[in-house]
Amino acid sequence: MAGWQAFLDENRSRFQEELFDFLRIPSVSALPEHKGDVAAAAGWVEARLKSAGLTTVDVVPTAGHPAVLGEWMGAPGKPTILIYGHYDTQPVDPVEEWTTPPFEPTLRGGRIYARGSSDDKGNMLIPILAIEALLKSEGALPVNVKVLFEGEEEVGSGSLPSLLETHKERLACDLVVNADGTSWSEDRHGILVGLRGACAIQIDMKGPQMDLHSGIYGGAVQNPLHAMTRLLDSMHAPDGTITVDGFFDDVVPVSDADRDGMSGIPFDADAYKQMLGVADLFGEPGYTPLEQVWVRPTVEVNGVWGGFTGSGVKTVIPKEAHAKLTSRLVPNQEPQKIVDVLIDHIRRHTPLGVTVDVKTEHTGAKPYLIPTDHPGNVVAARVMEQVYGTPPFFTRLGGSIPICALLLDMLEVYTVTLAFGLEDENAHAPDEFFRIESFERGQKAWCMMMEALAVADLT
Amino acid sequence: MAGWQAFLDENRSRFQEELFDFLRIPSVSALPEHKGDVAAAAGWVEARLKSAGLTTVDVVPTAGHPAVLGEWMGAPGKPTILIYGHYDTQPVDPVEEWTTPPFEPTLRGGRIYARGSSDDKGNMLIPILAIEALLKSEGALPVNVKVLFEGEEEVGSGSLPSLLETHKERLACDLVVNADGTSWSEDRHGILVGLRGACAIQIDMKGPQMDLHSGIYGGAVQNPLHAMTRLLDSMHAPDGTITVDGFFDDVVPVSDADRDGMSGIPFDADAYKQMLGVADLFGEPGYTPLEQVWVRPTVEVNGVWGGFTGSGVKTVIPKEAHAKLTSRLVPNQEPQKIVDVLIDHIRRHTPLGVTVDVKTEHTGAKPYLIPTDHPGNVVAARVMEQVYGTPPFFTRLGGSIPICALLLDMLEVYTVTLAFGLEDENAHAPDEFFRIESFERGQKAWCMMMEALAVADLT
Repeated sequence: MAGWQAFLDENRSRFQEELFDFLRIPSVSALPEHKGDVAAAAGWVEARLKSAGLTTVDVVPTAGHPAVLGEWMGAPGKPTILIYGHYDTQPVDPVEEWTTPPFEPTLRGGRIYARGSSDDKGNMLIPILAIEALLKSEGALPVNVKVLFEGEEEVGSGSLPSLLETHKERLACDLVVNADGTSWSEDRHGILVGLRGACAIQIDMKGPQMDLHSGIYGGAVQNPLHAMTRLLDSMHAPDGTITVDGFFDDVVPVSDADRDGMSGIPFDADAYKQMLGVADLFGEPGYTPLEQVWVRPTVEVNGVWGGFTGSGVKTVIPKEAHAKLTSRLVPNQEPQKIVDVLIDHIRRHTPLGVTVDVKTEHTGAKPYLIPTDHPGNVVAARVMEQVYGTPPFFTRLGGSIPICALLLDMLEVYTVTLAFGLEDENAHAPDEFFRIESFERGQKAWCMMMEALAVADLT
Repeated sequence: MAGWQAFLDENRSRFQEELFDFLRIPSVSALPEHKGDVAAAAGWVEARLKSAGLTTVDVVPTAGHPAVLGEWMGAPGKPTILIYGHYDTQPVDPVEEWTTPPFEPTLRGGRIYARGSSDDKGNMLIPILAIEALLKSEGALPVNVKVLFEGEEEVGSGSLPSLLETHKERLACDLVVNADGTSWSEDRHGILVGLRGACAIQIDMKGPQMDLHSGIYGGAVQNPLHAMTRLLDSMHAPDGTITVDGFFDDVVPVSDADRDGMSGIPFDADAYKQMLGVADLFGEPGYTPLEQVWVRPTVEVNGVWGGFTGSGVKTVIPKEAHAKLTSRLVPNQEPQKIVDVLIDHIRRHTPLGVTVDVKTEHTGAKPYLIPTDHPGNVVAARVMEQVYGTPPFFTRLGGSIPICALLLDMLEVYTVTLAFGLEDENAHAPDEFFRIESFERGQKAWCMMMEALAVADLT
């Protein structure tokens, strides 16, 4: 047994307690009232990296939430990897739907329930523990390691471009290994090769200058809720096809090879429906569900509000209505161009009697693709086959991890993903959880991955 | 000068203080947490009726909020009138948009700002003060008077039918005089002859069994917010015409005589737009704005909510979406039939991938019409011409005062409206106010009305 394996075994319960401590910090990046908690999480990561044995560790302030950088460069002649993860979390609402409080991590049935357990605190702590295990059992790491952990992933990684620009040399590396994302199943690993991008807007619609009595005025004045539903509805055809002019202009059609690869990945529509609790799936005609979520773009309404929402009746025509939208992007859509296209659509489809203001929530994340035969993927596939006993699938993720495309643009290195979340773990929903088995298997896999990368040709 | 006029003059400041006391009670009937306040308002009214000199006054419990009944029957051989009003108010949200707190009545520029000042506490206190003035200055009232004040008008008067059934004999009368509603302008009175009815539903839509990450699942599953906007949008054509099958089936077309009468009432579209703060009016084609709000029915969305509505971005496909709707009805639409028609439409237009539950908020209010030449209207018109110096308009109100149709059904008497609110007084919106001039002129008008009714033939 490798020395690091014994170290991992001996420290199992300590590592779990540390994850619980990490999860107790309510580092919700979207909510201003949690700004201090995100900073506290950065401080926790800084301390943990130092105790793991990294030699240079800093909390780096940004215009938003801080990032944490660190490195161990004691393997001259060996490749240098940059490990990425994020310690911020999604908000917790609706908080009343959590079985146990989101920031009181609870172990039930081999699962750790807490906001951020799967996305991404559990996943990002794994390589830190692997580093500690290698350093304390072997005295050195097999490769040079740099780390970049951020606190803005859940709000679009807005500070990352300037951070990467400022620290370009410090972050220079041969490969990024990303500790954020999902695997395939408990029995078979999935290596992520494609991510959708994203952009986000908020629509603020105004009608009359005050809330109006719907009896006295109803019938003669535009109701902003009617205008908003009309506007939002104008963005999709009844069959689910996006009807925003120009939206598909830059989309690269999915190749037959890509479609063949995806068709070889098992997908059980009945199990999927059961897991979601829906009688029918619903999406763009002409594509399989996996294609719909992996390689086709979306325009998704994430929130709508306006008027009276309490109990009982209030006969009001509200003076305003609001909606939040995100769009998932596929190669070769540019977030800013899609924002422009959406704004143009909104301008042209704003009903009579209201005015609209569109706010861009962040400049967005580009979509990302890494070749399946990239050396980093080849190494990762070999290691994962050893860990799981079966070869991994090369998968995609409908979500966005902005760092992958950003690093490719700014550092000119590809990102291989080595993450152990699973799709059923309620990322972004109540009762988020992370499997202890994934937490522990991940530590072993990261140790093996670092050893394998030491002898790989990444150039 | 009539004795009652001197009494009114002498007690001006006391009456205003009493109105302020009344307005300080936050009797919001829609919100369960204000149940005690509605009861407190009933108690306040009971005490005030007794001090005014009514001989029999009771707070009568109902399945919802209590009502207050009272009477003075000391004018044998004279007509008996039943005075109606309500002491419950609308909710106050958005409370942050009030210039001064809604339940701290404040006098600014001859206007009393408070929730309920115009609708209907100011208006309903007026006849109580007129009764006191007549009784204390003349020793008797010119007619027999009964009163019925309720606490559920703003939530649809749900307890009134059984209350009227139970107290049918106690409430028997020759004419109802209604102290809830609006007049025409500061210079010219309007006598209400038509009201729209109303019904209300809530739509609760469910999609996936949990909130979903819009990246991981977006594209393959119906988003309840998309389905809700589609469903709501299906209820109107782009030009504003209602497109719900069967909705217009029972509508009595507006007669040419009615349209002629309404066309003689001044309406300044520019001033209306300016008051509302909109660049364009918007309503059913083929009807004037007055016709749209007075004699045409509506389907109005009063509230929509679902998904993430905080600051920043949450990339969620919410598991549910909700909407509140009310419909304004015109003669001869039946509230329950319209609810059925709406539910049928919703069933047939529910998009794939979601389920819908429709809750009927209350059984609704029937529309109401009283002939312009009804003896009660003839008397009221004569009195109002004396008070204002010009003959009144016979107007309609787009809102609903359920008692009018109910009393016609159950007591077989028509209701004449004698109310002094004006349309710009922000009923149901922040900064509701009531003009002191209306408050005082109303007291005089009510005294004159009771004297005039004493010699009228109401049979």
